[in-house]
Amino acid sequence: MKFIENENFIKGLEVRKAVLGPNHVERSLAFADEFNSAMQQLTTEYCWGWLWNREGLERKQRSLINIAILTALSKPHELKLHVHGALRNGCTQEEIREVILQCAIYCGVPAAIDSFRTAKEAIDTFEE
Amino acid sequence: MKFIENENFIKGLEVRKAVLGPNHVERSLAFADEFNSAMQQLTTEYCWGWLWNREGLERKQRSLINIAILTALSKPHELKLHVHGALRNGCTQEEIREVILQCAIYCGVPAAIDSFRTAKEAIDTFEE
Amino acid sequence: MKFIENENFIKGLEVRKAVLGPNHVERSLAFADEFNSAMQQLTTEYCWGWLWNREGLERKQRSLINIAILTALSKPHELKLHVHGALRNGCTQEEIREVILQCAIYCGVPAAIDSFRTAKEAIDTFEE
Amino acid sequence: MKFIENENFIKGLEVRKAVLGPNHVERSLAFADEFNSAMQQLTTEYCWGWLWNREGLERKQRSLINIAILTALSKPHELKLHVHGALRNGCTQEEIREVILQCAIYCGVPAAIDSFRTAKEAIDTFEE
Amino acid sequence: MKFIENENFIKGLEVRKAVLGPNHVERSLAFADEFNSAMQQLTTEYCWGWLWNREGLERKQRSLINIAILTALSKPHELKLHVHGALRNGCTQEEIREVILQCAIYCGVPAAIDSFRTAKEAIDTFEE
Amino acid sequence: MKFIENENFIKGLEVRKAVLGPNHVERSLAFADEFNSAMQQLTTEYCWGWLWNREGLERKQRSLINIAILTALSKPHELKLHVHGALRNGCTQEEIREVILQCAIYCGVPAAIDSFRTAKEAIDTFEE
Repeated sequence: MKFIENENFIKGLEVRKAVLGPNHVERSLAFADEFNSAMQQLTTEYCWGWLWNREGLERKQRSLINIAILTALSKPHELKLHVHGALRNGCTQEEIREVILQCAIYCGVPAAIDSFRTAKEAIDTFEE
Repeated sequence: MKFIENENFIKGLEVRKAVLGPNHVERSLAFADEFNSAMQQLTTEYCWGWLWNREGLERKQRSLINIAILTALSKPHELKLHVHGALRNGCTQEEIREVILQCAIYCGVPAAIDSFRTAKEAIDTFEE
Repeated sequence: MKFIENENFIKGLEVRKAVLGPNHVERSLAFADEFNSAMQQLTTEYCWGWLWNREGLERKQRSLINIAILTALSKPHELKLHVHGALRNGCTQEEIREVILQCAIYCGVPAAIDSFRTAKEAIDTFEE
Repeated sequence: MKFIENENFIKGLEVRKAVLGPNHVERSLAFADEFNSAMQQLTTEYCWGWLWNREGLERKQRSLINIAILTALSKPHELKLHVHGALRNGCTQEEIREVILQCAIYCGVPAAIDSFRTAKEAIDTFEE
Repeated sequence: MKFIENENFIKGLEVRKAVLGPNHVERSLAFADEFNSAMQQLTTEYCWGWLWNREGLERKQRSLINIAILTALSKPHELKLHVHGALRNGCTQEEIREVILQCAIYCGVPAAIDSFRTAKEAIDTFEE
Repeated sequence: MKFIENENFIKGLEVRKAVLGPNHVERSLAFADEFNSAMQQLTTEYCWGWLWNREGLERKQRSLINIAILTALSKPHELKLHVHGALRNGCTQEEIREVILQCAIYCGVPAAIDSFRTAKEAIDTFEE
């Protein structure tokens, strides 16, 4: 077994599948090898088991905050996954749009143009 | 008169005072001179009149999103103002904390350590 | 009609077409839908109507400054459009090269290598 | 002698003094020790001897481009020096203002607010 | 007790004290309150307990890599702590200098100038 | 001849070929034209002739530091070349993995996920 199934990992795996979709998560874990499995361990345990399980913000709010962060940091690959996550968590297209418009003002117009392009692709390819 | 008091400016001035506090805003406008008054014009009109007046996200949500963006971009001066704004808009300390913890994971630990320091100062100096 | 045709929008549309090319702009506006039309509105109105219409810097200078900003921020999609814009505004290849060399020193060599690649593609595909 | 006085260093020292002021440069070189003198060598030789001596852009244009880059990268210490440099190179306050307003749109409002504050201090403390 | 003393926390606390100095760490933990104690928990557990305890890189190497990262990300507060950590872990001033010179080329000259200033202060105030 | 073959250029060319592979370097130089040859000159002379020839850090250490920098700055094209360089310089896959895991904590998880993807591709396409 390549992963350490501690408490955060187990809780994290469940949330991660609920937000990013079970197919995506199972594929990521299946492709993990000696080079990158520690990254899968860390992400599952620390992002999903530790952070996303905390109280104080609803999942829907965490999704919108991630869209802002990923726009600010210019991370289109992760943004696409997290737009899907936002839709799974019940965010509306209107809310996603408003977050990216807010980024246009605070992160600059080029960051927002890139994220609108990525988010549009994510919305168009989303099927649940 | 150094500002163009168009519709977005007038609406924006009102929201800006409600969120950042009337004293801060009046001081900023009073100190505007030929060098920087266009920046005051733009901010009032475009951030506050155009963006913050839009529907689709509550002010409280926009405040939390700004805390995330300002942490991602490492902007402590603006962060301090917007932590005050978040408190005025009804965000709890718990919600602010959760946003910065989310940034620890997604923007890296040093960005979050800096923002906890700034946010703590902002909370301690906030009086309403 | 999906756009608010206020004064800045109308002036902005004209400058935007002159700099980025009418085909690109008409395509962007035609594809705007409920999700992203507010971004088109904002860009046309504030970047192009408000900023690019200001006096104090020639269009050619604004183009060179944008090449520097887009290199500093790592935004290849926008850089490509703005290299085309720079050529339309009368910048020479030599000036574009000098701006990116300056970025090599101040933004780091990897940012400049990426922008030379993008700018080269933009120059090679530019036809007027 | 702690510096290698090759051709780029000698040419660079001259330009660096002309742009940043002889006092600033002499102080920087005098304080150089075993830990940081290689950085002084590199900066003088590579930024000032190699880049700033190139043809293709006037010094005034390089100053405006640096103001944009340093705003995009959030580097207030260097920005202050380069606003002084811009004034020495004949840029007007109006041109400096226009560059930072352009950054407001493309790099985001918080970056521009910070740079207006720094540039204002630099202008107020500039004496020639 | 405000912290969850799990295995990673306990191991992490030990490494953190060894690298950043026991006084700094005890002060940080003592000042933790309801607002920021979860950040102390996360840092101790994940940075220090999970990452810094991993095999595959010596502590000295991790210190040099952190100096590079903190220069790339412009984080002077954390850089100061980690220059102290690097000295405690046996890095020489020469190695620290070489890392920041490498950042001058790859992250740009302004990032390196800022980090030389911060690192110099850290070296001058370091006493063991 | 399009390059100035000074001492740093000649020494730099040798190191650059040793680290990035002679084919890559010869192709880059062959494709240099009036637009981008000064960038090739600068890179060969300053990165490779000046920096990489310095004593104080082994090539292997410089490679690991570059992987950290390129992850922090989100530069996948250069990262791919420098993962190849790291392997040529004798870094193990384990060391490369540990550097990127360190970036996960300090630069944020999305930066590390992107770099694991790029590094994995680089490792899989590396043949020596």
